[in-house]
Amino acid sequence: MRDVAIIGVGQTPVGEHWESSLRMLAANAIHAALADAGVESADALYVGNAYGTSFSSQSHLGALVADYAGLAGIEALALDAADASGGAALRAGYLAVASGAVETAIVVGVEKSTDTVGSDHVRARNVSLDADFEAIHGATLTAMAALLMRRYMVEHGVELNAFEGFSVNAHGNGSKNPNAMFRNVMKAGSFARSPMIAEPVGLFDSAPDADGAAAVVLTSAERASDLVPQPVRITGSAVATDRFALQERPDMLFLAAANRSAYAAYAQAGISPSDADLFELHDGFTILAALTLEACGFAERGQGCRLALDGQIGLQGALPISTFGGLKSRGNPAGATGVYQAVEAVLQLRGLAGANQVAGARTALIQSLGGLGSTAVTHVLQA
Amino acid sequence: MRDVAIIGVGQTPVGEHWESSLRMLAANAIHAALADAGVESADALYVGNAYGTSFSSQSHLGALVADYAGLAGIEALALDAADASGGAALRAGYLAVASGAVETAIVVGVEKSTDTVGSDHVRARNVSLDADFEAIHGATLTAMAALLMRRYMVEHGVELNAFEGFSVNAHGNGSKNPNAMFRNVMKAGSFARSPMIAEPVGLFDSAPDADGAAAVVLTSAERASDLVPQPVRITGSAVATDRFALQERPDMLFLAAANRSAYAAYAQAGISPSDADLFELHDGFTILAALTLEACGFAERGQGCRLALDGQIGLQGALPISTFGGLKSRGNPAGATGVYQAVEAVLQLRGLAGANQVAGARTALIQSLGGLGSTAVTHVLQA
Repeated sequence: MRDVAIIGVGQTPVGEHWESSLRMLAANAIHAALADAGVESADALYVGNAYGTSFSSQSHLGALVADYAGLAGIEALALDAADASGGAALRAGYLAVASGAVETAIVVGVEKSTDTVGSDHVRARNVSLDADFEAIHGATLTAMAALLMRRYMVEHGVELNAFEGFSVNAHGNGSKNPNAMFRNVMKAGSFARSPMIAEPVGLFDSAPDADGAAAVVLTSAERASDLVPQPVRITGSAVATDRFALQERPDMLFLAAANRSAYAAYAQAGISPSDADLFELHDGFTILAALTLEACGFAERGQGCRLALDGQIGLQGALPISTFGGLKSRGNPAGATGVYQAVEAVLQLRGLAGANQVAGARTALIQSLGGLGSTAVTHVLQA
Repeated sequence: MRDVAIIGVGQTPVGEHWESSLRMLAANAIHAALADAGVESADALYVGNAYGTSFSSQSHLGALVADYAGLAGIEALALDAADASGGAALRAGYLAVASGAVETAIVVGVEKSTDTVGSDHVRARNVSLDADFEAIHGATLTAMAALLMRRYMVEHGVELNAFEGFSVNAHGNGSKNPNAMFRNVMKAGSFARSPMIAEPVGLFDSAPDADGAAAVVLTSAERASDLVPQPVRITGSAVATDRFALQERPDMLFLAAANRSAYAAYAQAGISPSDADLFELHDGFTILAALTLEACGFAERGQGCRLALDGQIGLQGALPISTFGGLKSRGNPAGATGVYQAVEAVLQLRGLAGANQVAGARTALIQSLGGLGSTAVTHVLQA
């Protein structure tokens, strides 16, 4: 298996792009990544997208995006793993280059969420739940996150305000990211006063749906060194799944797929959790941030929130997370989110993260979750 | 890059499965393929599906199908390339095993088409067209196939009855396939009398949408020899795209993606077209069968129909096609079709095709098309 490296990154701002369609967002990110890599084209394109069919009545995004981006002819396929679709596309690109079948691959994640609003938006979003046993009963991802969060609070004796640290960190970091959707620093007391979306999930526990696209260019590590001054190696790549529905899991408060994919990626990279200089995790809900830190070896069970309260997740902390604002503040363009994580980690490892820089970052983890951890995709990136 | 082999195949009958849901069909094919391979599980699952979201409001099929099939935990991702989704999933499985990252992979293609009927069905099917420039104007895949067929007839001076041979061959072969949807042999004169769907595309020029699932189990060729008596090697694998819309193509009557992916696969396998003992091609419309034979090196431009009229595509002909009935008679469960082709080719290469056997088959081509050739996925399988 060949070693694989990222040689270029590109992103659009995250937010409400009324002027741009799905394909336009994707093409903009692709062109930015190709320019960053200093290459004209690539041999293959892997598109991560979760809701193109339900938001925009558009599937078949491999060929569609390749054509619109001026790349018609090349291999192009689309990957879906709900909100982990960006991570899934990165995995596909990694495997294609690692195999030797593909020399240079573009991975783009794209989502156009804001053309569909209200109950139509909820229905469109709900296609990634279990249609026959969850969505049909009116469940939503947020409603199920609320059940999970409540259970966590009861089991571990944790109060609502314990989760505040995740939001404060995300918004503090996002405020310095020009591509972030919400650039407001949280005011003291905002978290406690925030309206409930699905109790106990409040406004600041839940990440906003958004439009956006992010792209990376991959090639073999050997070739990468000749092409760019600062290639970033992908030293670990793994996907795992869990029982699809929360109620089927033997231990609802343990994210088994996050755990399994993280430790597989650590093993491949030859690292342990303490080697990570930063972690772009899937903070779609604050409860997922807490559970992820526990599943991936950074906190004991029930102690995930303590890392945030103790200031360890900040840019100067022991394990900076959501360094550009995470899903919460940068925004969550679902199928693009996993690729945004890769772009942000690359900027950190190149030392080009500006006001969001983690000093001396050499090893970054990124993890993308689909559903409430039904799918987890973990990559280890190293300078 | 490791050599890859197929060690097990499974399929459900193709047709209207009122008693089975999407996940049930997929699990049935997976279990059949695992049993055929004589293995209990696998390390990864790649699901090909085109219309789960629009037909059944269900995406996130990697984790969903893995869970329902009793495989929760393993890597699982879903691939979309419209009606080439099955081919796309096979490509993903091939790359995963070829890279060495995955030891044993299951590839399943699944579609549940018949829960949605009438204009809802047309809208659900149309998500694989260009939503902004084709579907919005009321175009359908069949309507565009009609434009393409008309253009072909005019440019090449071909009459409608020239296409009859493809239907007669498909139904003749399908009549002997217990898994086929339509097992009727065509009566003399049926083609000429068939009602028009979108003139000149008649009932017998167009393949039926259907429910079904097919699966194959892949592992390294080295390991395959220890596991099963008759592994089938994947010696060529390639994906290519074309301009998405017909009107953008410099030569509408040349399937550039089919050509490009076929010749890339031939080159990898070290074969030329004349080495193929059979070809499972994408006969979603008879015009696609003709254009595919021309694009892939089996007929001169404008001569594709001659192969059928001359009897060369029959089981005893120079190039048997659609040996189990093809999309036309076996049926077209869209995202599953590319995997059905793989299953059928494996049965041929093992000499287990029964009444559909091509004598002495050693090399099989399979090709899956998305849209009217916007995406093409070609694999070469060898005994």
